[in-house]
Amino acid sequence: MSTESRIRCPKLRQRIMSARDAAALIPSGVNVGMSGFTGAGYPKAVPGALAEHIRAAQARDENFRISVWTGASTAPELDGALAEVNGIQMRLPYQSDPLCRQKINDGHMEYMDIHLSHVAQHAWSGFYGKLDIAVIEVVGVTEDGRLIPSSSVGNNKTWIDQADKVILEVNHGQSAGLEGMHDIYYGTALPPRRKPIPLTRPEERFGEKYLICPPEKIIAVVETNAPDRNSRFSPPDENSQRIANHLLDFFSREVEAKRLPPELLPLQSGVGNIANAVMAGLNEGPFNNMTAFTEVLQDGMLAMLKSGKLAKASATAFSLSPEANEELANNIDFYRDRIVLRSQEISNHPEVIRRLGVIALNGMIEADIYGNVNSTHVMASRIMNGIGGSGDFARNGYLSVFMTPSTAKGGTISTIVPMVSHVDHTEHDVQIVVTEQGLADLRGLPPRQRALNIIENCAHPDFRPQLRDYFERACNSKRGMHTPHLLNEALSWHHRYEAFGQM
Amino acid sequence: MSTESRIRCPKLRQRIMSARDAAALIPSGVNVGMSGFTGAGYPKAVPGALAEHIRAAQARDENFRISVWTGASTAPELDGALAEVNGIQMRLPYQSDPLCRQKINDGHMEYMDIHLSHVAQHAWSGFYGKLDIAVIEVVGVTEDGRLIPSSSVGNNKTWIDQADKVILEVNHGQSAGLEGMHDIYYGTALPPRRKPIPLTRPEERFGEKYLICPPEKIIAVVETNAPDRNSRFSPPDENSQRIANHLLDFFSREVEAKRLPPELLPLQSGVGNIANAVMAGLNEGPFNNMTAFTEVLQDGMLAMLKSGKLAKASATAFSLSPEANEELANNIDFYRDRIVLRSQEISNHPEVIRRLGVIALNGMIEADIYGNVNSTHVMASRIMNGIGGSGDFARNGYLSVFMTPSTAKGGTISTIVPMVSHVDHTEHDVQIVVTEQGLADLRGLPPRQRALNIIENCAHPDFRPQLRDYFERACNSKRGMHTPHLLNEALSWHHRYEAFGQM
Repeated sequence: MSTESRIRCPKLRQRIMSARDAAALIPSGVNVGMSGFTGAGYPKAVPGALAEHIRAAQARDENFRISVWTGASTAPELDGALAEVNGIQMRLPYQSDPLCRQKINDGHMEYMDIHLSHVAQHAWSGFYGKLDIAVIEVVGVTEDGRLIPSSSVGNNKTWIDQADKVILEVNHGQSAGLEGMHDIYYGTALPPRRKPIPLTRPEERFGEKYLICPPEKIIAVVETNAPDRNSRFSPPDENSQRIANHLLDFFSREVEAKRLPPELLPLQSGVGNIANAVMAGLNEGPFNNMTAFTEVLQDGMLAMLKSGKLAKASATAFSLSPEANEELANNIDFYRDRIVLRSQEISNHPEVIRRLGVIALNGMIEADIYGNVNSTHVMASRIMNGIGGSGDFARNGYLSVFMTPSTAKGGTISTIVPMVSHVDHTEHDVQIVVTEQGLADLRGLPPRQRALNIIENCAHPDFRPQLRDYFERACNSKRGMHTPHLLNEALSWHHRYEAFGQM
Repeated sequence: MSTESRIRCPKLRQRIMSARDAAALIPSGVNVGMSGFTGAGYPKAVPGALAEHIRAAQARDENFRISVWTGASTAPELDGALAEVNGIQMRLPYQSDPLCRQKINDGHMEYMDIHLSHVAQHAWSGFYGKLDIAVIEVVGVTEDGRLIPSSSVGNNKTWIDQADKVILEVNHGQSAGLEGMHDIYYGTALPPRRKPIPLTRPEERFGEKYLICPPEKIIAVVETNAPDRNSRFSPPDENSQRIANHLLDFFSREVEAKRLPPELLPLQSGVGNIANAVMAGLNEGPFNNMTAFTEVLQDGMLAMLKSGKLAKASATAFSLSPEANEELANNIDFYRDRIVLRSQEISNHPEVIRRLGVIALNGMIEADIYGNVNSTHVMASRIMNGIGGSGDFARNGYLSVFMTPSTAKGGTISTIVPMVSHVDHTEHDVQIVVTEQGLADLRGLPPRQRALNIIENCAHPDFRPQLRDYFERACNSKRGMHTPHLLNEALSWHHRYEAFGQM
């Protein structure tokens, strides 16, 4: 495709430059808002060029670091490249890059983990300081200078609004057919001027198809031609399939009991192999005319749209395998009729999640016997990725489900523990816990009944005797029978794993 | 006042009976939804008569227990009386009764702690089982059988809707002038049929002044004449005043920085002496034309309405001293123009709290150095009261503030600890921590910076060296620098207190 066809606004064609020249416009010490959500729609060229720039500055003994705000996770070309040169002072609100993770856990990078629905309003309110520059990937620019969003929306609207200067990456590698798939709502405001968000069905559109940016803000336009991260999914393993089966059985029972309608309620699904297995199960299952109101569309949901099981889907980003991405591009008109991509302040908004009655399906690192969930920290201290949108959906959804295999690291770790080493979702927000062993339905249960239910249904049989023993001794200790714990043993499983390699 | 003036519907006058006869209509094993929120508007006579009934059954060796669902806390006449005879199988969603607390912590009563905004929808969805009977205090009944709500609304609408049978208590002791103060919204629904809640200002009315109940459901009407719990507040002590001052200074700085408007944003305030001190401070402070969107109106907010500092207030219940209650009754027309009492599904609704941008002010038991907050559990296991609405407001508000004196039990307990023994509000939901020592503004800070901020600003000087020592050793342990912890020491402060009476 030609430059003219993608950058239809002549004025902006005058600002085309190399990634290297654009990166040189970013000084040290600034806060930079970048596009990108679950490895989709992130800038492909400027971050790498900036990393080179930083490396050169460091060779001159200059300290050069920036803070990077995104939608969610990006890719090696962004987080990886900047982390490698120690170029990131502060990162928010979510990341999943291995190199970033290492830098954060080694203490060489600051990281703030934030509910994804909170980010736009906090930034707008100035809680994170001033946003200086935005670097945003788009599919193209219209004649009148409106921006065609890319494979993720994330916080792009907010970054463009808040930044003094904007650098655009126009990615020729993204399907031009994405134009028209987005719905960018410009009706949010700071209190006391907020109005109801007019969304009552997942597929409703009430915004603009384009991102709006005053052209004078745009200091550079960089052309790229590169795919998104597009990582391949493993085929569902046995544990994932078992988890999916437990969940499908549960849904069937809920429909039978008339606690869920036959088409279920709008689905939110976290990212990963278990989530994809659940979607594969739903694609084979008895439910029809389903909808999704979620953050991320993975392969599983794309297949469900294709089969017709899923009627409509709303998200803020794609996260596809190369094959699924090709399927999307080849049938973009079909999918554009069925998919709406929104800003993450809407995709994750408590108001609309609560109103729609979303079924929240999220993975976790570990749960404790009382149903508190750790989604972010390994052994209390090391961050894995971040809370992402799991809190937005778990707290406000109609049903809140957390899933994990019952063991990790070859069976040396039990993901059901006496006390989680970090809490991201409190007992109040966790209704259903599922492992390959079974499903614990915690609705209406007080803590000790939750414990029995989780131990007997979800824990791996190898760890059940130990868990029962802890729980019984905690009950017998008479320290307090509401949530019985042994203070000097509650975290001993984690401690034991670190000391001896086995919980 | 006469029976005729309070029970204007002739049909319902025929169902007047004694509390004893009404209580006899409640069989063992049922789920009973009772009115009552923060010691206001709870039934005064039937629970005590039921307790007598239970005692008699127990004397005949019959097992007689019920489950009690309320709005929030009640009083000795309800929770106390039923707990005393071990008459409660299961209690939800909140309580603060000393005897209940003891029974729960001794393992003789089950208790489920629930976000107050979740209760109505969970009950409606059948997550807690079937509601059999509702026992609701009202101020009176209109000619056509509509019910005039009392000094709290709580979950009354939901209990009346969901229960098969309803017992009314008409309390002659409640001011007849409460009529017209309430706004009962009948527009909520289960998904997928939910619509936006049409509230954009705290004082807006969009519902009914009355509770609606099909007369055939009403199996008994009991007349009472008794005051609410109406507990006296202590005058603000030095620590409460210091906390209030830190907070007022913070608000002034935020207004100056234009992160808050001059009239602030709608205030939510938890219950208790610190909350009352903050309101007293605001009543003397520089802010005018404030509003409140809160659960409970205490003496402090009533005084602010009187002075004109507070223009309008929305809540679901009063919680007043005897003097303030008299002030309310004597000037009920003045207050009716300024106060709206709503169902707790609206007063605590994430949608409207987020839209209004509420400033959430809540107390806590302890916070850890990373800003996780424990609102409910003493030393991990013993429940104090419950999470109440603190999660609804902290998660969805514009600003989330948690307050506590820096020490408890004569200085033997530090309320700032390495790791909280129970998490109700995760780091993501805690922006401002205040003690009498100072205020920690955690917005935009990653975990280690939060720790330094909390230790140096909020911890008591007697405990700062120990906290710094823990934090430094955790950092040096290199177990993970995102949230440095020592697994075998994280809960040692609580353990030490239990073993030696001193953290």
